[in-house]
Amino acid sequence: MGYTRMDVYSFLKAVREKRPLVHHLTNWVTIYDCAQVVKSFGASPVMAHAPEEVAQMVGLASALVLNIGTLTADFIESMKIAARAASCRNIPVVLDVCGAGATAFRDRKSSELLEDKHISIIKGNSSEIARIAGWDVRTRGVDAAHVGADLHKIATALARQRNCTVVITGKEDIITNAKTTYVVRNGSEILTHVVGTGCMATSVIGTFTGASPHDITAAAAAGLSCYEIAAELAVKKSSGPASFKQHLFDCIFHLTKDDVDFMQRVA
Amino acid sequence: MGYTRMDVYSFLKAVREKRPLVHHLTNWVTIYDCAQVVKSFGASPVMAHAPEEVAQMVGLASALVLNIGTLTADFIESMKIAARAASCRNIPVVLDVCGAGATAFRDRKSSELLEDKHISIIKGNSSEIARIAGWDVRTRGVDAAHVGADLHKIATALARQRNCTVVITGKEDIITNAKTTYVVRNGSEILTHVVGTGCMATSVIGTFTGASPHDITAAAAAGLSCYEIAAELAVKKSSGPASFKQHLFDCIFHLTKDDVDFMQRVA
Amino acid sequence: MGYTRMDVYSFLKAVREKRPLVHHLTNWVTIYDCAQVVKSFGASPVMAHAPEEVAQMVGLASALVLNIGTLTADFIESMKIAARAASCRNIPVVLDVCGAGATAFRDRKSSELLEDKHISIIKGNSSEIARIAGWDVRTRGVDAAHVGADLHKIATALARQRNCTVVITGKEDIITNAKTTYVVRNGSEILTHVVGTGCMATSVIGTFTGASPHDITAAAAAGLSCYEIAAELAVKKSSGPASFKQHLFDCIFHLTKDDVDFMQRVA
Repeated sequence: MGYTRMDVYSFLKAVREKRPLVHHLTNWVTIYDCAQVVKSFGASPVMAHAPEEVAQMVGLASALVLNIGTLTADFIESMKIAARAASCRNIPVVLDVCGAGATAFRDRKSSELLEDKHISIIKGNSSEIARIAGWDVRTRGVDAAHVGADLHKIATALARQRNCTVVITGKEDIITNAKTTYVVRNGSEILTHVVGTGCMATSVIGTFTGASPHDITAAAAAGLSCYEIAAELAVKKSSGPASFKQHLFDCIFHLTKDDVDFMQRVA
Repeated sequence: MGYTRMDVYSFLKAVREKRPLVHHLTNWVTIYDCAQVVKSFGASPVMAHAPEEVAQMVGLASALVLNIGTLTADFIESMKIAARAASCRNIPVVLDVCGAGATAFRDRKSSELLEDKHISIIKGNSSEIARIAGWDVRTRGVDAAHVGADLHKIATALARQRNCTVVITGKEDIITNAKTTYVVRNGSEILTHVVGTGCMATSVIGTFTGASPHDITAAAAAGLSCYEIAAELAVKKSSGPASFKQHLFDCIFHLTKDDVDFMQRVA
Repeated sequence: MGYTRMDVYSFLKAVREKRPLVHHLTNWVTIYDCAQVVKSFGASPVMAHAPEEVAQMVGLASALVLNIGTLTADFIESMKIAARAASCRNIPVVLDVCGAGATAFRDRKSSELLEDKHISIIKGNSSEIARIAGWDVRTRGVDAAHVGADLHKIATALARQRNCTVVITGKEDIITNAKTTYVVRNGSEILTHVVGTGCMATSVIGTFTGASPHDITAAAAAGLSCYEIAAELAVKKSSGPASFKQHLFDCIFHLTKDDVDFMQRVA
């Protein structure tokens, strides 16, 4: 498979020009990094989860990011209110099914969120998405477990079933709406040694789709490519997972058209 | 306007000698950085929010910091208990009205906290403070929106109305108790690209007023000047927002009398 | 006291080979660092606290870490469910009595957790452990206060009383199950200037005991030694508390047999 000259940079440019406000209901582990990745790309993060205000906060936002990493029953109820409000405004709603396949509670709450039909993009690692697609796999906490099946087929089937875009991140990222499929092969193995890089990827998808809502599948692929190009630049300057994370934010902040045009590996 | 030779360093010295315990009820996004900024200045942070213990924890503290960034109704009730306990002990209570003007819920809860009359210092960016002062402005999530009015007048009016000190942070910081006004012009544009620098500023105000409760308006100005001098030193060593934040903590830790005496820009 | 050639490295090797899943119910201040320290050692962290799922998540884990830093009554109930599930599976349960001695609420909730008899290791600083052992000391928020008594005797008495392992961290760490006692003298003074280093130590104990459950007292000592050797390596590269923390994670990630064999100071 060759690499198409998708105009990835135009999506980055849109983020920097429009500076979308990206409203998050996310987990307490990586919440800072989710905010900082949005800010490093030049956009504006806001985190708010009280049921009394989420709908109004969504009213200011260009995208909504939901991440169930440290879910509770109450928190999911706030997510439902926020997702409904986002859906009414036709802004993208990205759901990270973090830890799906680890517990029945996560599977059930993910299903509830999907049943409401307000989710634009479902994002997870291989075993999380396989589980959401109905496969009998067990995620190891929040780390991907082996899935003995074709991930492309799983992603496409889920996208068709839920009428949305599906993103599976991993060594290669699959982004599909069942009709069009992108594969992103940027990135670095070190991402797997840093807590929160998956959550940040979801926030990046929120940021890019918030700036380019006309084609959220392409925007998600472009966002992941930019994020992972920055990771490739950052790893060269790093001496381990923590210095990598710092360089990642700095490289995102300084990412140029040349970096993006030259390094993108989107098929 | 010239710069007075305020003895900023004496306030930093007081922090390092007294090592005040600064009790926080703050948001879940920047909670780590709020704690680390206090610790980097040589003081001691503690975060506790259970209604069963906040009053007793306040009993150990020299200052109380309240930040509504990720507020819920329950969390605000804990804040009220803590503020009452702090007020009984006459220790400074700093309220960061984070996101005021973004949702009616934030406006209402900020008002409730202010109605109890236990707040010593109200702190926010321009649109947050304008909103609290009754202006019809809309904060963009937690980022300042343009306020078409004289910020000095807004700050002074609010300080008089609420009988407290008001701090507006921005390119220049305004600190006023309606009688005395300080303007701090230290800092760097990069602070706006890092999540949590506003929350940290509030924790710094708690730290400095906790060590110098006899003049909280001057202490707040001195604290902001020190924090922003460290930012000026840090930005020179940085290659982006994340390396900046790391250097900021390190520079705070090593801040000298010479740095402070030479670089302070307080009018 | 001389230093025994305890085979510290074999415990590190076990962590890297078995990659234990370490389930945390911890505080919101240092939750990211707790996760990242586990990951940097090559193991797998997961954070989950909903009462509906903690038992099932424990079912996947090799160790359970409980930290009461930002406790609430509900959160403690989730901890009890998780501890019971862990106990049924005979996996180590490490309790960090963070802030015990600061408020009656913390003392009471710590006692409740201990009364259930599922805790394998109680960990704290000197005044926290002294308080749990029944001494009339007052912790200063989450910072150790002076304890005018022999810490070895306190640790041993508590270990006997609660039939578990007790860890007191400080300039020297005491690890005892009343029969065997280890003292670790690795580390650096800078650890006291960084928020979360105590919490991370607890996560390290969870990680090492999860990989070597046959001797949790030795595993805890070995884990602390490795963590503090990395701190000794990191401090040499650092210019303050924040760059230290970054280097700490990187040094943990790269820690070699030679580092460990040469530098361990376990008696």
